[in-house]
Amino acid sequence: MTPLTVNWQTFLDQMDQINALSDATPGQNRLVYTPNWVAAQQALIQFGQSIGMQARVDDYGTVYLDLPGQTNAPAIATGSHMDTVANGGRYDGLYGVLGGLHAIATLQQTHGQPKRPLRLISFSEEEGSRFPATFSGSKHYTGLAETTAITDPSGVNFDDARQTAVQQLLTLPGIRHERPALPASFTELHIEQGPRLVQHQAQIGLVTGIVGQRRFTVTVSGTANHAGTTPMDQRHDALQVAVNLIHELAQIAKTLSPTLTFTVGQFDVSPNTANVIPGQVAFTIDCRHTIDGILDQFEMQLTHLTTNRPDHTLTITVDRWVHDRPVQLAEDLCQLNQKLADQLGLTSMQLASGAGHDSMIMSQFVPTTMLFVPSINGISHAPEERTEFADLQTGIKLLTASLHAQAY
Amino acid sequence: MTPLTVNWQTFLDQMDQINALSDATPGQNRLVYTPNWVAAQQALIQFGQSIGMQARVDDYGTVYLDLPGQTNAPAIATGSHMDTVANGGRYDGLYGVLGGLHAIATLQQTHGQPKRPLRLISFSEEEGSRFPATFSGSKHYTGLAETTAITDPSGVNFDDARQTAVQQLLTLPGIRHERPALPASFTELHIEQGPRLVQHQAQIGLVTGIVGQRRFTVTVSGTANHAGTTPMDQRHDALQVAVNLIHELAQIAKTLSPTLTFTVGQFDVSPNTANVIPGQVAFTIDCRHTIDGILDQFEMQLTHLTTNRPDHTLTITVDRWVHDRPVQLAEDLCQLNQKLADQLGLTSMQLASGAGHDSMIMSQFVPTTMLFVPSINGISHAPEERTEFADLQTGIKLLTASLHAQAY
Repeated sequence: MTPLTVNWQTFLDQMDQINALSDATPGQNRLVYTPNWVAAQQALIQFGQSIGMQARVDDYGTVYLDLPGQTNAPAIATGSHMDTVANGGRYDGLYGVLGGLHAIATLQQTHGQPKRPLRLISFSEEEGSRFPATFSGSKHYTGLAETTAITDPSGVNFDDARQTAVQQLLTLPGIRHERPALPASFTELHIEQGPRLVQHQAQIGLVTGIVGQRRFTVTVSGTANHAGTTPMDQRHDALQVAVNLIHELAQIAKTLSPTLTFTVGQFDVSPNTANVIPGQVAFTIDCRHTIDGILDQFEMQLTHLTTNRPDHTLTITVDRWVHDRPVQLAEDLCQLNQKLADQLGLTSMQLASGAGHDSMIMSQFVPTTMLFVPSINGISHAPEERTEFADLQTGIKLLTASLHAQAY
Repeated sequence: MTPLTVNWQTFLDQMDQINALSDATPGQNRLVYTPNWVAAQQALIQFGQSIGMQARVDDYGTVYLDLPGQTNAPAIATGSHMDTVANGGRYDGLYGVLGGLHAIATLQQTHGQPKRPLRLISFSEEEGSRFPATFSGSKHYTGLAETTAITDPSGVNFDDARQTAVQQLLTLPGIRHERPALPASFTELHIEQGPRLVQHQAQIGLVTGIVGQRRFTVTVSGTANHAGTTPMDQRHDALQVAVNLIHELAQIAKTLSPTLTFTVGQFDVSPNTANVIPGQVAFTIDCRHTIDGILDQFEMQLTHLTTNRPDHTLTITVDRWVHDRPVQLAEDLCQLNQKLADQLGLTSMQLASGAGHDSMIMSQFVPTTMLFVPSINGISHAPEERTEFADLQTGIKLLTASLHAQAY
């Protein structure tokens, strides 16, 4: 096997090649287990095999590419996820996969065989954009939880889609069907998906942790009635109560902490007709913070505001359907990367991630860290998601240095 | 022709007979020009012809049943509309049609031929529940505006549906295809569709006017972004701006007048996903008052709040798509009915209608008045719409007295 020459053009070609595996709609659509997703994981396997990496695929379709070490010590791993959100961008997930591949290829070319095996992981699924489950790839790898009995919007069963896709991946030559042992460390390179690095003119974000997150659905049930004939003091208007509640909660969130994010993203009205007083409103709350106690306080205030109300003709129910605790990433890996960034003369800042990542799952089992590069205008999960090429390069250079320090 | 014996059982049987002309969904569905609507107008024509009334149908399918008078003076008219909202009630519209028929039949049986002709009008359409046009029956009768080039949700053209239905009505024997001259007066008997009569324990509402009404669509355009990674002070959250706006407008409405109704009935969010900051929100405002100046003030405040905003990253547009001025109904007819109600020993109150009615159109051309009977719990436009039988009787008795005073 003739190794490819490692250069930036290879990285850019590989990015283009995999981003071309999307359907005709705007942005990237590489939802888990779809034909484009299968083709993308297959392309990645061939990229790895062409530089002598050993390929494994587990039952969930996560691809593991190992550069063998001089010892059999647990691997030093990097990587991210291959799936996208619907109408997503070119970098979310894929940058960490192909950036990791570029880093390992560079190390191999420059320094030869590492002491410890180097592993690139391309997780099957992180976004939850096809099936109602997130992080199923890293959850399967770590044995955290198995995903069963769910279907996508067109009724396709998760297990059926998964088994078909995995069988397709296993038709490639030289591939093993196996879930490898957990690595000694995991470093995930990712775009920031927010505006902080750009605003602080930092080239690199060293991620100290991932925010805790809670999501609620609040349902206000009143009485639908005629918008013209029902006097104002005799209404049980679910929308007005919902609006007042959101107004108060926004004030509370602001008071609790300036970094507590508070989002009402979904708001559904019934019957949703201009001349009928709304009988029911259901809205979601997404709130995130690095300190779980702040989220506790927010939830207490939400409970306080929605119970023991004087008006018994309206009922309010609160359903909490996401409860992820804040995650602290590995401090020593962060310190190592800080030192390396300083040595490379990079401007950097330490920050918490406001989005969930596979690192959230991995960090429960393996020392884990993340590296962020700036997102132009902070835009992500959209076709407009962009990062300057120089920033993409900087992130990969730091990752390369970090993997070198850990594996050689 | 043998006249039917006029009694309450006949009225109730006729109510049942026409309410049976609905499809299998909950409540009443007798949308204009549908087969059930045609059958209902046909049944009404036969009820009228059986007591010697002369039937006419105009180009819009409005049915006019005349009891000839001793003179050719303009008619004294009563009536309401035959169509319903989707999943509506048994009384909205139909009560005024069959109540009017009962009143005229009673007068004929008790007092013989009137001096002036008595006319029962069953307007083709008032609700706007099939085609995007309201009051098309009374608008056609008064020559106010013609309805053209509109289709129902399944793509059927208004003119095609109208012509087919009118042709079906004209197959009945003894019917004339004609739009009669306007009457000398119009009295519409209707359910209140609100709670005021019940709360004031009044048997009868004497309607002094109909509220003015304006409807707006307010569109707030911000920027959709990631709910976790976008700091609170860098959001252009369309939903939060919309919520604050509604919160302020509700306070303004309350301050302007306790009888100013303010309803946000429709509220649509884009992309409407729990973990995405809303990029756009469009919501409707329905506001009504008897004094146009109050509505002017409300609209000025709305304009003030939505223009010259400090935050130029969000835009707000306001589109006013309904602008109906308040209508004053005929004072002398209201005084006549007040006197008659007092003579009959009825508890009554004078009030403005919060809903639009054909009387709003008729009053622009003909001295017009309305009589309301109580709606149980104020519920209307719903299958649960109810009025006590005693109240239905009371309304018809007062209508009978009023028509007697005007036509004999």
